Amino acid sequence: MATGTPQPAFVLVRPQMGENIGSAARAMWNFGLDRMRLVAPRDGWPNPSAVAMSSGAGRLLDEAQLSEDIAGAVADCTWVLATTARPRDMTKTVYTPEAAMAETARRIAAGEKVAVLFGPERAGLENEDIAQANAIVSVPVNPAFASLNLAQCVLLCAYEWQRATGEADPVVEALAGTEIAAQHEVDHLARHYEERMEEAGFFFPATKAPAMKLNLRNMWSRMPLTRADVQMLHGMMRQIVRWKDKGAD
Amino acid sequence: MATGTPQPAFVLVRPQMGENIGSAARAMWNFGLDRMRLVAPRDGWPNPSAVAMSSGAGRLLDEAQLSEDIAGAVADCTWVLATTARPRDMTKTVYTPEAAMAETARRIAAGEKVAVLFGPERAGLENEDIAQANAIVSVPVNPAFASLNLAQCVLLCAYEWQRATGEADPVVEALAGTEIAAQHEVDHLARHYEERMEEAGFFFPATKAPAMKLNLRNMWSRMPLTRADVQMLHGMMRQIVRWKDKGAD
Repeated sequence: MATGTPQPAFVLVRPQMGENIGSAARAMWNFGLDRMRLVAPRDGWPNPSAVAMSSGAGRLLDEAQLSEDIAGAVADCTWVLATTARPRDMTKTVYTPEAAMAETARRIAAGEKVAVLFGPERAGLENEDIAQANAIVSVPVNPAFASLNLAQCVLLCAYEWQRATGEADPVVEALAGTEIAAQHEVDHLARHYEERMEEAGFFFPATKAPAMKLNLRNMWSRMPLTRADVQMLHGMMRQIVRWKDKGAD
Repeated sequence: MATGTPQPAFVLVRPQMGENIGSAARAMWNFGLDRMRLVAPRDGWPNPSAVAMSSGAGRLLDEAQLSEDIAGAVADCTWVLATTARPRDMTKTVYTPEAAMAETARRIAAGEKVAVLFGPERAGLENEDIAQANAIVSVPVNPAFASLNLAQCVLLCAYEWQRATGEADPVVEALAGTEIAAQHEVDHLARHYEERMEEAGFFFPATKAPAMKLNLRNMWSRMPLTRADVQMLHGMMRQIVRWKDKGAD
């Protein structure tokens, strides 16, 4: 995720609140993107509120390329994407963020320069803005409720860029098991064992006790316990206690 | 994305700012999730600032299940995920949001109940909280910069839930449904332009004319022209000729 690697430019078109510009910078840098471009920020540039909100990603603002219009901001790009909440201009291909960033990664690997346009907080991109893009990106949100803010839209696109190019390992572990124990059953089992092992003097020395109990809790919650497992484990402990009592005779 | 459909519960553990609870509710509802659970909110419950920020997703707050501890919040769940910025507890399987929500969808389809824990804004989940989860979800962020806020972490997980269960078309090709020009219409257009440009003396020198005409033909055939495009292009050329004739007066 080092800077300097080929990546798309994220272009904030007529952004209004400086705070949102700062939040967008942080959203980008979370996923290793640091090429921000700004088109006619409402409150001028540089913007102190943007800097205040960008903590840790301030460099993106320092290096942000400022333009008066979209044409100037994307002059060097061969593929321009426009983000919209609901695609109005159906004469352009509409991509999900996932498909858009996969295609962006493919084009950038082939030497192209790609820009993604993000509209002003309140109204989003105008049709005139979208007319300057080659394709559309639209997040498939709940038709009954679409309220992504600027930084969130930037975040989802940056996240998909990372997914399209990163090597994140989705360490999936297949957990099978019918009749899986419910959490309260596992809690009960954990308490049962903790109490008995306490009596047995297992948690020694006292200084190590909290860590030992934590490890035990972790062991239980880590195991894909079935109801049968839980019953068997209860039974084992009860039998050990009976055995101990017998031995005490 | 209707409510009532089986879905994971998103559990905010000891959330601090009411505004963030409201933002989390909106992030969830953007992707059709409406089962919020709260564990010991710092400022009590209900929280006016949460309501103020939740505009449009207030129902999630009204219906949020309030618990004193995590055990109470996830008592009915068979699989509990804990979100962490950087996995400290490596004794549990770590999933990307994508893999976690795919597994969540699989388990829910199989009748299981799943909960996802989100920690307090400042510190995130404690080890004692993670000890009560079966697995970990971690967003693969820039190692040099991890600054996802609560609502953003909720947003990415809700987004992945939507991706795992939604039917969003990754790419909606442009011109879908619109009338694509038939080949003979494109040929007619090509001839029209070729004849006029011939009159205009465009194909010069004669030795280059065949190649120039071929390039022009190739351009037309390469373009995804609609019937409307073809009519407009015919009209443009006719008007240019009228304009030329007028100028000749």
